[in-house]
Amino acid sequence: MHFASDNSGPAHPKVMRALIDANEGYAMPYGKDPATDAVVARIRDVFEAPEAAVYLVGTGSSCNALALATLCEPWETIFCSDVAHVQEDECGAPEFFTGGAKLTLVDAPDGLMDPESLRARVAATAQGVVHGVQRGPLTLTTVSERGTVYGLDHLRSLTGIAKDAGLPVHLDGARIANALVGLDVSPADLTWRSGIDAVSFGGTKNGLLGVEAAIFFDPKHAWEFELRRKRGGHLFSKHRYLSAQMEAYLRDDLWLEMARSANKSAARLAQGLRENNDARLLHEPQANMVYCEFPRAAHLRARDAGAQFYSMGNLDGPDDAMVPARLVCDWSASDDNTERFLDLIG
Amino acid sequence: MHFASDNSGPAHPKVMRALIDANEGYAMPYGKDPATDAVVARIRDVFEAPEAAVYLVGTGSSCNALALATLCEPWETIFCSDVAHVQEDECGAPEFFTGGAKLTLVDAPDGLMDPESLRARVAATAQGVVHGVQRGPLTLTTVSERGTVYGLDHLRSLTGIAKDAGLPVHLDGARIANALVGLDVSPADLTWRSGIDAVSFGGTKNGLLGVEAAIFFDPKHAWEFELRRKRGGHLFSKHRYLSAQMEAYLRDDLWLEMARSANKSAARLAQGLRENNDARLLHEPQANMVYCEFPRAAHLRARDAGAQFYSMGNLDGPDDAMVPARLVCDWSASDDNTERFLDLIG
Amino acid sequence: MHFASDNSGPAHPKVMRALIDANEGYAMPYGKDPATDAVVARIRDVFEAPEAAVYLVGTGSSCNALALATLCEPWETIFCSDVAHVQEDECGAPEFFTGGAKLTLVDAPDGLMDPESLRARVAATAQGVVHGVQRGPLTLTTVSERGTVYGLDHLRSLTGIAKDAGLPVHLDGARIANALVGLDVSPADLTWRSGIDAVSFGGTKNGLLGVEAAIFFDPKHAWEFELRRKRGGHLFSKHRYLSAQMEAYLRDDLWLEMARSANKSAARLAQGLRENNDARLLHEPQANMVYCEFPRAAHLRARDAGAQFYSMGNLDGPDDAMVPARLVCDWSASDDNTERFLDLIG
Amino acid sequence: MHFASDNSGPAHPKVMRALIDANEGYAMPYGKDPATDAVVARIRDVFEAPEAAVYLVGTGSSCNALALATLCEPWETIFCSDVAHVQEDECGAPEFFTGGAKLTLVDAPDGLMDPESLRARVAATAQGVVHGVQRGPLTLTTVSERGTVYGLDHLRSLTGIAKDAGLPVHLDGARIANALVGLDVSPADLTWRSGIDAVSFGGTKNGLLGVEAAIFFDPKHAWEFELRRKRGGHLFSKHRYLSAQMEAYLRDDLWLEMARSANKSAARLAQGLRENNDARLLHEPQANMVYCEFPRAAHLRARDAGAQFYSMGNLDGPDDAMVPARLVCDWSASDDNTERFLDLIG
Repeated sequence: MHFASDNSGPAHPKVMRALIDANEGYAMPYGKDPATDAVVARIRDVFEAPEAAVYLVGTGSSCNALALATLCEPWETIFCSDVAHVQEDECGAPEFFTGGAKLTLVDAPDGLMDPESLRARVAATAQGVVHGVQRGPLTLTTVSERGTVYGLDHLRSLTGIAKDAGLPVHLDGARIANALVGLDVSPADLTWRSGIDAVSFGGTKNGLLGVEAAIFFDPKHAWEFELRRKRGGHLFSKHRYLSAQMEAYLRDDLWLEMARSANKSAARLAQGLRENNDARLLHEPQANMVYCEFPRAAHLRARDAGAQFYSMGNLDGPDDAMVPARLVCDWSASDDNTERFLDLIG
Repeated sequence: MHFASDNSGPAHPKVMRALIDANEGYAMPYGKDPATDAVVARIRDVFEAPEAAVYLVGTGSSCNALALATLCEPWETIFCSDVAHVQEDECGAPEFFTGGAKLTLVDAPDGLMDPESLRARVAATAQGVVHGVQRGPLTLTTVSERGTVYGLDHLRSLTGIAKDAGLPVHLDGARIANALVGLDVSPADLTWRSGIDAVSFGGTKNGLLGVEAAIFFDPKHAWEFELRRKRGGHLFSKHRYLSAQMEAYLRDDLWLEMARSANKSAARLAQGLRENNDARLLHEPQANMVYCEFPRAAHLRARDAGAQFYSMGNLDGPDDAMVPARLVCDWSASDDNTERFLDLIG
Repeated sequence: MHFASDNSGPAHPKVMRALIDANEGYAMPYGKDPATDAVVARIRDVFEAPEAAVYLVGTGSSCNALALATLCEPWETIFCSDVAHVQEDECGAPEFFTGGAKLTLVDAPDGLMDPESLRARVAATAQGVVHGVQRGPLTLTTVSERGTVYGLDHLRSLTGIAKDAGLPVHLDGARIANALVGLDVSPADLTWRSGIDAVSFGGTKNGLLGVEAAIFFDPKHAWEFELRRKRGGHLFSKHRYLSAQMEAYLRDDLWLEMARSANKSAARLAQGLRENNDARLLHEPQANMVYCEFPRAAHLRARDAGAQFYSMGNLDGPDDAMVPARLVCDWSASDDNTERFLDLIG
Repeated sequence: MHFASDNSGPAHPKVMRALIDANEGYAMPYGKDPATDAVVARIRDVFEAPEAAVYLVGTGSSCNALALATLCEPWETIFCSDVAHVQEDECGAPEFFTGGAKLTLVDAPDGLMDPESLRARVAATAQGVVHGVQRGPLTLTTVSERGTVYGLDHLRSLTGIAKDAGLPVHLDGARIANALVGLDVSPADLTWRSGIDAVSFGGTKNGLLGVEAAIFFDPKHAWEFELRRKRGGHLFSKHRYLSAQMEAYLRDDLWLEMARSANKSAARLAQGLRENNDARLLHEPQANMVYCEFPRAAHLRARDAGAQFYSMGNLDGPDDAMVPARLVCDWSASDDNTERFLDLIG
C-alpha cells in the first residue's frame, strides 16, 4: 500500500534487464555511444519530430531548469502556475540556472493555469521598458501538480496567449506518459501541435531508475543546451546507462503500458473515494495522482496498517476531522493493495 | 584493447547485481532510504571520520563544483593546477556553481602542483584589499590529470601552505582508489590526516555506472551542500540506485580490488613502453593512466588492429614521428589485451 | 508644475556648493578620503548607531540589491510587498545580485504589507526542507510605493514576524526622509528600534545628484558588503563627490528641511483634491506622493498647460472618465505651481 | 606632488561649471533628457560612428563588466592580458556580470599583449568541444596597466587574431584620451578601424567626477546592454549630471587638452628619471603613467617632503636598494611639482 510517490516504486524489470544488457564491453562516453543515437532517433519518432534536439539527463529538476535556462534570458520572467514544481519543489533551480530570472505566478485552479490570469500576468509585464523584468517563457505542467490534465483546447488557449506575445513554451512532462494515456492523444498532439517548444520528457516517475529527456522541437537550441548541461554537471560520462533505460522505456510502448497501469490504480482509488460518504475528492483525478480528504481516524487506520501516503494536514485533531491526503500510484501498484487501502479508509 | 578512458568500460557485475537487488518494492526517495544511511556510515568508516557529512551525486563534475561552491565565496579564487579537470574539462562548472569565482592556475610539472608556485600565487592574491578577488580554496587532484600521484609529503606541503593562509582544501578524487592503491596508504591518511577538508570520492571511473560521494570532514557544511545539490538538480529522487552502487563498491573492498587491477594493467603497459626503444613515457605512471609517446606508424598499427586510445597529436606526419598518447586502464582491462597492444606498438 | 517624479528635480544649491568645495586638490580615492569618514560618523550619529557599517553608492537599486544580497543566500526567498520597487522596478537586480534568490510577494493594501499575509507567506515557506527555497530577509519600503507610510506599530508587527522566524529585515528608504518627517519620529525609532537590520538610506530623490547610503546596524556585514559593492562596479573611485553630497545633505538637517517642503506640497495637493468633487484620492497620502484619480478632461487641461505627471490609464476615453494619476512632489515644488495645478484640474 | 593616481585629482573647473548649469529646473530621468541625447550624438561624431549604441555609467569597472557581459556567454572565456584591470582590480566583476565566464590570461610584456601568446591561447581553447569553456571576447587595455600604448599595427595584429577566430573585441579605454594623444591618431582609427567592437570610454581618470561611456559600434547590442545596466543598478535616475559632465568633457576637445597636460607631465618625469643615474624606467612611458625604480632613500626623501605615489616594494631595506614606483600624472599636475619631485629623488 505505497501511495507516497511515484518516485519510490521500483524500476520495471525490463528496464533492469536493459541495464544489464548494456553493461557489455566498452562504449564511448558522454553520449557518443550508438545507444544514445538510437534513443534520440526513437524519441524523434515518438514525437513525430525528425529535427528535434534531444538530450538525456538524470533528474527532472535538471531537465526543467536546463530547458528553461536555454529559453530564458536572465532579465526575463518565467510564467508558471502558482503550484508549479519549478516554483515549489526545486529549491530555486530555475533561478539558479537562468542566472536570476524571475518566476511570475499565474492562478491555477485545480492545478491548471487559468487563461485569463495568464493573459493578465503577461499584459502586466512590461515589454520594452527597461525598469521591469521582461516577458520570458511560459511553462506548463501536465499531469499537473494537482493530478489534473490539460485538455488540448485548454492547453492551446494557454500556448496561444504565449505565442501572441512571442514567448516560447516549455512543458514539464515529468508525468507526460500518464497525461497522454489519460487524454488518449499522441505525443505530437500534446506538444508541438499544441504550441509547445520544449518538453521535459519524464521517465523517472514512470518506472525508470532516473532518466529524463529534454526535447527542443527547434534544434537551434541544441548547442546551448549541451553547454549548459555540461556546465551544470549533468552530462553523464557512462551515458549508455541512461540511454539503455530510455530505450527499454520506449520499446514496445512499455512507457504507455506502465502509465496505463498507474492511471488505472488511481482511477480505482478515486472511484472508491467517490463511493465513500466520508471522503471527498479535492480535484478530479485525471491521471495517477489523487488529491482527496477523509477523516483523521481513517488516516490513522491506514497508516497503522502500513499504508504510506502523504497526509497534508494536522493529524492531532478529532477522529472525524477531515484531513487532506495525496495518493500517488506508480506502475507497480497492485489491485489488491488498492482495494485494501479503500477498505481501510472506508 | 580499450585504453581510451576509464569512463567507457563496463560496471562491475557485483554492482549490477546490487542494482537488481535494490529494485525490490518501495523505498523512500531523495536519500531517505536505509541503504543511503548505510552507505554514509560505511564511507565514514572507510575514512575513519565518524562526523563527516557524506552525499551522493551522479557525476564527477557536479561533485567537484558543488563541493567547491560550498567552500568558496563568489568573490574568491580557487587555486588549482594548470591542468586541473576543474579548469580544463568542466566547461566552467566551478565558475557557474560558485556564482562567478575565479580559478588561479598554479604550475604543475607532471600534473603535480609545485609548492613554490602555489606559495607565490597565494602571496600574489591580496587578502583584505577590496580591489582583487580574495583567496579561496585550494583544490588538488590525485591521481593527477597526468597519471601521477602526490606523495604524502608533497601533499602535505601543499595543504600546509593553504592552512597557513587559512584556506580550505578540496581533493578531486575521481580516481582516488587508484591513488590509494598506488601509495598503499589509508583513505584517512590521504585526506584529512593530510589536511584535506573535502573530497570528491569517485566511483564512476572505477567500475560504477555513475556515482560519486562528496565528503566534508567538518559537518558544518552539510546543510548548505544539501541545498546546493537540490538547487543544482543533483538530488536524485530514486536515490536507492545510487546508494546500492556505492554499497557494492565498498563491500569487501571491491573498489580497491578494481583499482588494483587497473593499476596493474597500467604498470604492465608502462613496463612494456620502457622496454620499447621507440617509445617514451612522458610522465612516470603511478596509477592507471599512462602518458607516453611512440611513432606515428605504431599509432596507426594499433588503431588498425582495433585499439582505442587517445592520440594527442598529429597523425599525418612521417611514420617515425613521435606522437603522444594517453592510455587509460580500467578495472576490466585484460592482460591479453595489454600484451597485444604492446606487441602492436613494439 | 512638475509632479512626474522626485527623480527629475534639481539638486539643492547647498549640495552643488559642497561639490564645488570638495573639488580642491587631491583626495584619496575609493572612500579613503576624510570626507567619507566624516559622513560615516555623521550617519552613525543621525541613527544613534555608533557601530553601524555605512557605505555610499550611486543609485537606489544598487543600494537595495547589494544590501539584500548581503542578507540573503542564493537559495532563500525575499519577502516583499507585491508593489515593491525591488519587485517591479529594478529589472531583477535582487535576483541578479543574490545569485538567484526568489521574491515572495506579500499582499500590501495601500502599499503597506499586511501582517497576516506576511505571516501566512512565511509559514508557507518551508524551512529546513530541502525541496523549496528557504526563508530569507523581509524587505519593507517606507514611504511605500503608494505614498503611504508605516506607523511604528504596523512596522513593528511586521518586523516582529520576521524576528520570530529569525529573518533579517531590510528597509528600502529611498524616501525615508519624507517618512520621518511624516511620522515625526527619529531615524533610530524608525529603523533599528523597530527591528530593521539594514537600511537603504536614500538621498537621490530628496535633493542630491545621486547618492544613497547602505547602513547595517550589525557591522559583521561590513566586509562582505564592501566586496559585493566592488564586484558590482559600485565602488566609486572619486568617492569624495559622493561624500560631499551626503555631508551637505545631513548638515543642519537640510535633508529633513527638503523632505518637509516636499511633503507640504503633497499635502496641499491632497487637500485640494479632497475639496474637488470630481477627484478622488486612491490612497491617503502620508508623505510626498499622491495617488489619485480625476477626469480625463482635467488630465488633458493640466497637460496642455505644461503640467508633468504620470497618467496611469487610458486618456482616449470620454471627458468625464476617471483616470488615475501619480503626483510626486520634490523639495523644490513651489506653492504657486501647486495651486496652479489644482486650479487646472478643479 | 601627487602622483598616486589619476583617480585622486580634482575635476576640471569647466566640468563643475557644467554641473551647475545642468542643475536648472526639471529634467526627465533615466537618460531621457535632451542632454543625454546630445552627448550620444557627440560621441558618435567623435568616433565617426553614426550608428553606435552609447551609454553612460558611473564607474570604469561597471563599464567594462557590463560591456564584456554583453559580448560574452557564461560558458565562454575572455582573453585578457595577465596584468589587465579586469583580472587584477575589479574583484571578479567580469565573472559576476557574465554569470561565471572564465578569464584566460595572455602574456603581456610591458603591459602589451603578445600576439603569439594570444594566438596560442586561442588555439588551446577548444571550440565546439563541450568539455571546456568556449572562446569568448578579447579585451585589451590602452593605455595599458604598465603605462604603455599599443601602436596601431600591434593592436591590429591582436584584433586580427580575434577576428580570424570570430571573436568580438573590447577595449578598456579608461585612459583612452591619453593613448590618443600619445599616438596622435583619431578615435575611429584607434577603435573600430582597428577592429574594436566595443569601448569603455573613460572620463573619470581624466578630469570628470565619475562618468564613463560604453560604446558598441554595432547597435544590435543596445537593448541587452540597457537591460544589463538597469539590472546591475547602473542606470542613474538623475542622468543629467552624467551627461553634463560628458558634454563638458568633449566640448572644445577639453578631454584631449587634459590628456595632453597629463602626458606632458609624465614625459617630463620620464625625462628626469632617464637623466638620473640612480633611477631606471621599468617600462617606456607612452602616456601619463611612469613605472620606474629608484633608491629607497629617494623614496623616503620624496615622501617626507609630501610627495604621494605608490611604492611597489619593501621600504625597509638599505638606503641604496632599488624600489619600484608607480607615478601617475593627472591633468592638473603642475610643472613645479614635477620638477620638485625630480629634484627630491635626484
